[in-house]
Amino acid sequence: MEKVVLAFSGGLDTTVCVKLLEEEYDLEVVTACVDVGQPKEEVEKAEEAAKNLGVKKHYTIDAKDEFANEYISKGIKSNAVYEGYPLSTALARPLIAMKIIEVALKENAKAIAHGCTGKGNDQFRFEAVIRSMSDFDIVAPIRDLNLTRTEEQEYAEKHGIHISSDKIYSIDENVWGRSIEGDILEDPANEPPEEIYAWTASSENAKDRPTKVAIEFEEGVPIAIDGRIMPLFELIEEANKIAGESGIGRIDTIENRMIGLKSREIYEVPGALLLIRAHQALEELVLTKDEILFSEYMSTKYADLVYNALWQEPLRDDMDQAIDNMQLRVTGKVVLKLFKGSILPLSRESDYSLHDIEHISFEDKENDQKEVEGMIKHHGLQAAIYQKLNK
Amino acid sequence: MEKVVLAFSGGLDTTVCVKLLEEEYDLEVVTACVDVGQPKEEVEKAEEAAKNLGVKKHYTIDAKDEFANEYISKGIKSNAVYEGYPLSTALARPLIAMKIIEVALKENAKAIAHGCTGKGNDQFRFEAVIRSMSDFDIVAPIRDLNLTRTEEQEYAEKHGIHISSDKIYSIDENVWGRSIEGDILEDPANEPPEEIYAWTASSENAKDRPTKVAIEFEEGVPIAIDGRIMPLFELIEEANKIAGESGIGRIDTIENRMIGLKSREIYEVPGALLLIRAHQALEELVLTKDEILFSEYMSTKYADLVYNALWQEPLRDDMDQAIDNMQLRVTGKVVLKLFKGSILPLSRESDYSLHDIEHISFEDKENDQKEVEGMIKHHGLQAAIYQKLNK
Amino acid sequence: MEKVVLAFSGGLDTTVCVKLLEEEYDLEVVTACVDVGQPKEEVEKAEEAAKNLGVKKHYTIDAKDEFANEYISKGIKSNAVYEGYPLSTALARPLIAMKIIEVALKENAKAIAHGCTGKGNDQFRFEAVIRSMSDFDIVAPIRDLNLTRTEEQEYAEKHGIHISSDKIYSIDENVWGRSIEGDILEDPANEPPEEIYAWTASSENAKDRPTKVAIEFEEGVPIAIDGRIMPLFELIEEANKIAGESGIGRIDTIENRMIGLKSREIYEVPGALLLIRAHQALEELVLTKDEILFSEYMSTKYADLVYNALWQEPLRDDMDQAIDNMQLRVTGKVVLKLFKGSILPLSRESDYSLHDIEHISFEDKENDQKEVEGMIKHHGLQAAIYQKLNK
Amino acid sequence: MEKVVLAFSGGLDTTVCVKLLEEEYDLEVVTACVDVGQPKEEVEKAEEAAKNLGVKKHYTIDAKDEFANEYISKGIKSNAVYEGYPLSTALARPLIAMKIIEVALKENAKAIAHGCTGKGNDQFRFEAVIRSMSDFDIVAPIRDLNLTRTEEQEYAEKHGIHISSDKIYSIDENVWGRSIEGDILEDPANEPPEEIYAWTASSENAKDRPTKVAIEFEEGVPIAIDGRIMPLFELIEEANKIAGESGIGRIDTIENRMIGLKSREIYEVPGALLLIRAHQALEELVLTKDEILFSEYMSTKYADLVYNALWQEPLRDDMDQAIDNMQLRVTGKVVLKLFKGSILPLSRESDYSLHDIEHISFEDKENDQKEVEGMIKHHGLQAAIYQKLNK
Repeated sequence: MEKVVLAFSGGLDTTVCVKLLEEEYDLEVVTACVDVGQPKEEVEKAEEAAKNLGVKKHYTIDAKDEFANEYISKGIKSNAVYEGYPLSTALARPLIAMKIIEVALKENAKAIAHGCTGKGNDQFRFEAVIRSMSDFDIVAPIRDLNLTRTEEQEYAEKHGIHISSDKIYSIDENVWGRSIEGDILEDPANEPPEEIYAWTASSENAKDRPTKVAIEFEEGVPIAIDGRIMPLFELIEEANKIAGESGIGRIDTIENRMIGLKSREIYEVPGALLLIRAHQALEELVLTKDEILFSEYMSTKYADLVYNALWQEPLRDDMDQAIDNMQLRVTGKVVLKLFKGSILPLSRESDYSLHDIEHISFEDKENDQKEVEGMIKHHGLQAAIYQKLNK
Repeated sequence: MEKVVLAFSGGLDTTVCVKLLEEEYDLEVVTACVDVGQPKEEVEKAEEAAKNLGVKKHYTIDAKDEFANEYISKGIKSNAVYEGYPLSTALARPLIAMKIIEVALKENAKAIAHGCTGKGNDQFRFEAVIRSMSDFDIVAPIRDLNLTRTEEQEYAEKHGIHISSDKIYSIDENVWGRSIEGDILEDPANEPPEEIYAWTASSENAKDRPTKVAIEFEEGVPIAIDGRIMPLFELIEEANKIAGESGIGRIDTIENRMIGLKSREIYEVPGALLLIRAHQALEELVLTKDEILFSEYMSTKYADLVYNALWQEPLRDDMDQAIDNMQLRVTGKVVLKLFKGSILPLSRESDYSLHDIEHISFEDKENDQKEVEGMIKHHGLQAAIYQKLNK
Repeated sequence: MEKVVLAFSGGLDTTVCVKLLEEEYDLEVVTACVDVGQPKEEVEKAEEAAKNLGVKKHYTIDAKDEFANEYISKGIKSNAVYEGYPLSTALARPLIAMKIIEVALKENAKAIAHGCTGKGNDQFRFEAVIRSMSDFDIVAPIRDLNLTRTEEQEYAEKHGIHISSDKIYSIDENVWGRSIEGDILEDPANEPPEEIYAWTASSENAKDRPTKVAIEFEEGVPIAIDGRIMPLFELIEEANKIAGESGIGRIDTIENRMIGLKSREIYEVPGALLLIRAHQALEELVLTKDEILFSEYMSTKYADLVYNALWQEPLRDDMDQAIDNMQLRVTGKVVLKLFKGSILPLSRESDYSLHDIEHISFEDKENDQKEVEGMIKHHGLQAAIYQKLNK
Repeated sequence: MEKVVLAFSGGLDTTVCVKLLEEEYDLEVVTACVDVGQPKEEVEKAEEAAKNLGVKKHYTIDAKDEFANEYISKGIKSNAVYEGYPLSTALARPLIAMKIIEVALKENAKAIAHGCTGKGNDQFRFEAVIRSMSDFDIVAPIRDLNLTRTEEQEYAEKHGIHISSDKIYSIDENVWGRSIEGDILEDPANEPPEEIYAWTASSENAKDRPTKVAIEFEEGVPIAIDGRIMPLFELIEEANKIAGESGIGRIDTIENRMIGLKSREIYEVPGALLLIRAHQALEELVLTKDEILFSEYMSTKYADLVYNALWQEPLRDDMDQAIDNMQLRVTGKVVLKLFKGSILPLSRESDYSLHDIEHISFEDKENDQKEVEGMIKHHGLQAAIYQKLNK
């Protein structure tokens, strides 16, 4: 029997997939769970679920540092935010796909399977990587058989599989963020209930005193919080904690999905918001206006590629070259004040600062103000000619 | 003696200007103060100061509704934000200049004067309008004579003029926002002291309970708060109050000034942040993804023109046509939660919503998920060919 | 039997479709041919072919003026060019689809059919309009049955249908341009043979004397050639003739198709190139630099929407508002020299010209050159600070 | 007496400068002429003129290869074209300024001087480099003294200096192009006389047979013409010759100058047009659609920086990184047909081609056309919902 490697979380979709792959596709299933910072219990639950399902081989792959160092770091350097959302799931998918390919090569499998439905973005993200980076067949049982969630549940029960049925929302989680969707959240007229949040205090319940936090960057990447140097993955965990306690990190948005639907999405991204805000505050100090405008353009494009399953697009690599060159100067320290859901930069310092206090001061006598007069006379010359013509 | 009309606030710069215009330029000075929502006391102070200086004629011009209806409304519809700042001063300058021109025409003056120094943006904004829309000469005494603030103070004292000396910051204020700069704020390493804020509670002192606020829009312009319909000027005052109480509206940024300097700027813009956030939340619901991307591009360009003294540029008018066409559908209601400095949209409704609940639901059986497979196969085709070639 | 309306040209694809729709889909076929300026013989051929196939009802719809006035005029005003190509086929498709919908409504049909394969762009363009603007079912027999060209030919022969077999290229033609693809042209390493061209002389065989042509515009639309005022459709025919004789209008490009493939395409667009070049030459005179940059951005976006089957996207309508506002001033005359494949503007005139001879002259004494010095000192200030820091 | 180094061409402006610097500024003048491919006679004329003026020291600096390899190569890789013009003068100015700085350092000079007036762009380009890259004072005698051309001529005569008076146009020339301005050319309604052209045949007088030319690129830079490998400088000279003979390379445009004026400009840039067109034709084959769109955006920005005297802006360096990464694949051969002013790519080949003949063929049976149906159904979904709502 030929082998298939299934990206496996132990949730309803992928559990049903195991059985479908065996029964409907006649394949031997190898399951793999890639750890990108989801809760430990989930990783363990996947392992146990695989065992309970009788899967012969299950892989748990620790990709936490690779995720932080090779993917999230790029998200920070580019300020990659899609329609207000810092791309947690979208950034992890290409890495997960790469790890699954590695397992499939090792297992000499014929195909790779995923549990995505035909509505969302993740099917694109998995398959784009698998098609670009390997020659494996791709199997998507839920989508192929056009199953609804209810039908999945019936199928599971028929096969004696019990999935804790209290999950009313569809949740995805990694160290860079949590996304929550489904049920009453689908209608943008409904307010999200407090219970859906796990990483962030409501602003009511957030810490009662403001928190001052100092973040140090080296070449665009955060390296220390409050003077403590740490690996990026741990630094993000710390940032999640600090910002989440202060009620920072909730996003409630109407998102344009890849297949064109508008979808109401809730995210919890405390660390991502904090680190990206700090990063931008430092960039404002060290980059020229032209660089800032250009990097905003790149940022939109970068986020668009990542969101839209185009991590493998060579343009991403091209942009990384320009970004890395700019980031050489994004080294320095930013102090921010966090309180009840708000982030305010308090101070910023860098050896590469383009801010020039002498020039700006009201008491500067050296530069003759009159010199600027000619500049002003010529400013907006075409608009002036236009207005005169118009009269 | 020929007449000059001076844009007059009663502060140090313009007070010194009155004397300079009389003594150094040998002109008869007419002063004018345009009310765009600065504090009433300031408008009255200008009137009194003009009297004390012996100015023969002083105008107080009420432009509050015109400012809201013809200028701020455009700022809302275009989400005009320059490097994070909703353009309060920049939006008011062209209107003030137009009003001064009207006075100068009425007084049959020879010239128009302003008290700007040669460091800032406002000299551009005044002069661009005056040059485009009239043929008056322009006099800028402080800049012409290259005076520092200390020199101005000495000059004032020599002429027996007493300006309250407790002003250490340079402040500009209208209904759309307050800007504070100067002194220790110039160095981005310094934290701004609490005393500089007048419109916004610190998040510590902000209201202890969250505020829910409902904002209704008609064709892109806010028309009601919590069901109460009111003129735009009053609505903005109300929005300032509501948002300010909840600690919303402080901005601390490194701004790129027109002449290329980086300058640390502090703004208080509670109503502007609230109304623009609500406006965007509604746009997310009713505009297509292509429209949103395009209007983000226009927004940056629009803010750039306004900030950079190009209100008269015909492109602004061209963009208004596209914006107004989009805004026809930006009609509906947004409910937001304000608390301790944070704004979170809770719900949004519109007859023009493009959000389609049936399509998005996990239980939709009508659309065959498999249909999307072909789309996925072709997605990122060029990236895939590139990656295969690369191997 | 239920009715289907088929967009019919009398070529292989649509002829085979008639039989397939009858035999495989069991539908009564009504054929319709929309005249958008293709050769008269083709329109007549379609009529005759429909008769020979025993079709009960055939419509010939004259949409020539509507095409020029409502579609091509927008292409000119926006300078809509996709990767170098002025969008002939892409502009006509939405109009053809609208006309077919009208027939389908009149005939009380159940469905609309087209003969597109699954490789190209036109299937998107037809179906996007039909889905947006009506509720008809859509049938695409060639694509549904996955037929190759050879299989189509076999099927035709089996049904006793004889299509002139000398057609080795796939050609589409309307008054705005001709496209030629297929056979040896598919490989970009092959030079296109001279025989594929019908509208343009090779530069060798082009007129031996240069042609001077004067084109007058009113609000962005050409209204006269060499002083002769004529309706837009006729003016384009005339422009095709004049430019084609001088060897202008051949395009040979590698195009990015909608489904991501790169495709070598040959176009003949003499009139389009001439009119768009003249239009741009006039815009350079009357629009401000900011307007030109913005309209270039819109132009790319406009062409992208039209090429990518998004004529119905509301953003197109939004952009039309901005474009029409700019075009109010694009009124005037341009003289160009055409010769052996090249177009060179010789002179341009407009009452809205922003070109100001006095200012630019070397002999102007009124404006003190020294005034510009302050402007120069501040120019590139941030770049200078950066370079000094770098040393 | 302190020394000044003057960028010297031997023309009216710089000749007058020598005398002015001595008499009005009391400086010892060192002259320097940087050879960037202007006619040999001009370089020699400068040397002789310096001698005749009694200048003690004159430098002739050969920067031809540096210009080609470090400046023009970047112009080609980025397709840098400003409003249709391939930036010949603008690209050379920063290099000339750098060479003058080297001389000034060697000579231990106090200042650097140039002969620019206050109307043009070159004053910005020289001074931006000098201010960024050195601390020399800058002297601009013609601008400082606000001299008109007539006044310059009078001054020259008074000092017994005879400049050949037949120069009615202002011409600048280097290997990348020639610019011609002034006199009757200033009015866009006037046709340029044939006599102003020196590098290009009129299309009437151009070669009577078409020329086929093969250009090979390596990493974005042309390395061979018709199989003959040569250094870039020589390759450009060759390209100028080949393209000029075929009547290619004349540009007649209304340009937006830095200080906002619209100016009619004539350029001769045969080699530049040929090499950039060939470069783009190759890019169409090897870059993805996303890369092409992004590089078009960069191209506009790049040209803007170069035209606007911002060669030293760090963004240029950032963009170079992205561009160089893309150009790694711009290796291959393009054959073009040149005839009487027109350029047509005939064929293109590259090992990095993303063009995939199998996929595109009408006879491909492997890929089921029906697969694309789901893609089409979802295409333009938001536009469709919008249109349905609108009814």
